[in-house]
Amino acid sequence: MGLFSADIHTMDDLFLHTLQDIYYAENQIVRALPEMIEKATDKQLAQGFKTHLEETKGQIRRLEQVFKLLGKEPQGVDCPATDGLIDEAEDVAGDIDDKQVLDAALIGAAQAVEHYEIARYGTLMAWAKTLGHQEAIRLLKQNLDEEKAADDKLSKLAESSVNRKAA
Amino acid sequence: MGLFSADIHTMDDLFLHTLQDIYYAENQIVRALPEMIEKATDKQLAQGFKTHLEETKGQIRRLEQVFKLLGKEPQGVDCPATDGLIDEAEDVAGDIDDKQVLDAALIGAAQAVEHYEIARYGTLMAWAKTLGHQEAIRLLKQNLDEEKAADDKLSKLAESSVNRKAA
Repeated sequence: MGLFSADIHTMDDLFLHTLQDIYYAENQIVRALPEMIEKATDKQLAQGFKTHLEETKGQIRRLEQVFKLLGKEPQGVDCPATDGLIDEAEDVAGDIDDKQVLDAALIGAAQAVEHYEIARYGTLMAWAKTLGHQEAIRLLKQNLDEEKAADDKLSKLAESSVNRKAA
Repeated sequence: MGLFSADIHTMDDLFLHTLQDIYYAENQIVRALPEMIEKATDKQLAQGFKTHLEETKGQIRRLEQVFKLLGKEPQGVDCPATDGLIDEAEDVAGDIDDKQVLDAALIGAAQAVEHYEIARYGTLMAWAKTLGHQEAIRLLKQNLDEEKAADDKLSKLAESSVNRKAA
């Protein structure tokens, strides 16, 4: 949320603010993923991050459509939760020397970010339903489904190979 | 994660560090929930937060058992992700004037925290499996199941009444 929540008076304000929060988050993720791709040693993991980078760009375009539906300009709002999650991912990417342990840590950090987005999209969809924003629900659901699938793919990759190699 | 990840060399280090991360998170949640209980207007929501406060204290005791199984002293590690999530919850709790909109925002903030914990417990369980920490898996799963149930209860409460009252 961050510094502008004093301007929230109605559910419309809250919806817009949280949309700005996830818009900021997705843009920060686009900024952070290239370093995670570079640090990943496991080829499937690096490829998974690359795929998710392209997916995230598509999610940003969908969010821009939601802003348009509301008659608003796309705009992010600074958010300490997102900043903390990204700091954590970058911190891990920078500091672990063993490459296999680093891969396992990168997956953990990425899944924490995925779950933040899953929570936010779930909340936004519930609010969009109450506010009657049908087209927004459809767009948000596409993003939510992609995040859940990305999280699931990371779990499978960790359990099928990355964690074993790191142990 | 935070400032100490330079000390992570093995999966055992990573597991311990992430355990310290979630131990810090659960303790911060115990510190933050009383304000959320006080700010909640919906009686079921306030009661839900109270129940979760007691649950969280039990989760901390389980985490202390996991530390003991590893032969380590329970200890938290400062984590910008948790700090950001809690700041967000507290910021929302302080700044929205309409009580019904505040309830909806409190649920959203609490679910973002729940999802952080769901991600962390999922990761810790996968790593505990690889490392052969059977008893730890059992304890972590109990925490994970409680977090998922708490998240689910918040979704149901939002969709059945809180969001409608706020719109």
